[in-house]
Amino acid sequence: MNRQVILTSRPSGVAQAENFALVAAESLALGDGQLRIRNRFLSVEPAMRGWIADAGNYAAPVAIGAVMRSLAVGEIIESRADGWAVGTVVCGWFGWQEEAVVDPSAVVRAVGEADLPASLALGVLGINGVTAYLALTSIGQPQPGETVLVSTAAGGVGSAVGQIAKILGCRTVGITGGADKVRDCVELFGYDAALDYKAPGLAEAIAAACPNGINVYYDNTAGAISDAVMPQLALRARVVVCGTASITQWDPWPQGPRVERHLLVKRARMEGFVIFDHMDRWDEAVSTLAGWIREGRLSYQEDILEGIDTCPDALAGLYRGENRGKRIIRL
Amino acid sequence: MNRQVILTSRPSGVAQAENFALVAAESLALGDGQLRIRNRFLSVEPAMRGWIADAGNYAAPVAIGAVMRSLAVGEIIESRADGWAVGTVVCGWFGWQEEAVVDPSAVVRAVGEADLPASLALGVLGINGVTAYLALTSIGQPQPGETVLVSTAAGGVGSAVGQIAKILGCRTVGITGGADKVRDCVELFGYDAALDYKAPGLAEAIAAACPNGINVYYDNTAGAISDAVMPQLALRARVVVCGTASITQWDPWPQGPRVERHLLVKRARMEGFVIFDHMDRWDEAVSTLAGWIREGRLSYQEDILEGIDTCPDALAGLYRGENRGKRIIRL
Repeated sequence: MNRQVILTSRPSGVAQAENFALVAAESLALGDGQLRIRNRFLSVEPAMRGWIADAGNYAAPVAIGAVMRSLAVGEIIESRADGWAVGTVVCGWFGWQEEAVVDPSAVVRAVGEADLPASLALGVLGINGVTAYLALTSIGQPQPGETVLVSTAAGGVGSAVGQIAKILGCRTVGITGGADKVRDCVELFGYDAALDYKAPGLAEAIAAACPNGINVYYDNTAGAISDAVMPQLALRARVVVCGTASITQWDPWPQGPRVERHLLVKRARMEGFVIFDHMDRWDEAVSTLAGWIREGRLSYQEDILEGIDTCPDALAGLYRGENRGKRIIRL
Repeated sequence: MNRQVILTSRPSGVAQAENFALVAAESLALGDGQLRIRNRFLSVEPAMRGWIADAGNYAAPVAIGAVMRSLAVGEIIESRADGWAVGTVVCGWFGWQEEAVVDPSAVVRAVGEADLPASLALGVLGINGVTAYLALTSIGQPQPGETVLVSTAAGGVGSAVGQIAKILGCRTVGITGGADKVRDCVELFGYDAALDYKAPGLAEAIAAACPNGINVYYDNTAGAISDAVMPQLALRARVVVCGTASITQWDPWPQGPRVERHLLVKRARMEGFVIFDHMDRWDEAVSTLAGWIREGRLSYQEDILEGIDTCPDALAGLYRGENRGKRIIRL
């Protein structure tokens, strides 16, 4: 039997445990050209809210009754596809389930970094690190000496952004929630300054930490944090719109301070980034990131839950802010 | 005596006639290296609101008691600067006055298109046309077959944007106010469709006119027009933020629907453009635009007021929407 987590109802905001069900299904027979994967690690990410939502998004929504869409790391345990050997560790779109039967097109890559933990393929060597690297360098274009401000600075994407910006010679300022994550930002991820958005006076704290303004704002949040940041952009700033984690509902559509005048007066640019557009650069990004990990220049933090029965509440917990680092479920 | 329009008080919104005074000053003696210009045409532009405002802007505000900052076209009537001959027609920062004494650095360019009206150097061959050309091509990057939507589509900048986009092979849709301007958009400026923002159902009208979404949104307005446009961006759309004409006050800062989700889902880009950053490309732009005018491919409309005493109310009138085409004051 194959235990699976399926989407049973569509939430209006963030999916809660009751929107999912854990079911046991018969293992499928393997078709010609297919692979059977035994999942070892399942990913949990903020973007899942969007994959579930009914509203216009960048991918078709997960259907009611379908296995929850997810990246996972697993091992090929049966293969009827040329070039895919049993025993290969692969990362791909295998879903929240113990076992997946997929076409090779569902595989993002074979995980070749045998010297590094396989779970990293879901975090710093996966969608988080690759997103951080490609979005920061292609849209943010940080130059040495510039100030890079990161929201959700201690999270899977944010912590990589901060460290990559530092490697590229920038001054890095992180915004995160709570004293523990502030400490992680400075001690673990090397931010020059870290600010707690839950403390009063965020705008003043940003001004003090960014005396020359913000050249690159890497935003995973939207909401009140962005509202405090936008007036403090430097001339020709770049705003990377990577996520909107602080907005839990887009219906009714939330209001905020208008950005047009900031963009105009500062000749600033604001641009959205979705990793699925950049799969052709995945291997290049992983190789660069793995090199930095081996050199001890790129740290990561994992928040590992045990067992498939932790899946249903795992996404809601992410939005409650209870994780420290990339949230992963180990099977 | 030299009649001048000076700024006497700082408005909180758009400057009204009572914020200016018409005074008569002694003509200044010409210093070494200076030029005396007899102004023939003075410019009136929406951006003047920003030049007057106290709040953070892209240029130092016009001082209380100073001659109102303005581009103008005039003739050199006295010269103590090498290379600047009496009789040369020049365009530059000569202010709202009959006569200016300036350094040559105030001159933007000598007006060499003797076959075209000199006033064009303030409009389609001046800040409007040059802004339209450079902002559209550098930020908007329109590709043949794409849909370009323009707000203030019949105005000095907008009408040039629409026609340039058409020359570049795009489908063009203009948004303007009132039946007269809608007609101008189609008949004079060749828009494929023109929409009246004062009529009900703007969002639906945009959807009908842009069935494949909007690839380039050239925005001179912000406000309700942009709020109707942003949800209809196409994938990888570019939003040129060129002006915020529909927002008359930024204190208190106006709210609007959040743009982050649109930019993210559509992987769209939104960027501010200020012409003063691009003065090095002015001659190139004028030369291209003049060529299109001579070929009959680029039309323009001028709204000419007579006499310097029309200056004080001219800017407020622009914001009342009473002009048709580029507003100019003829002396």
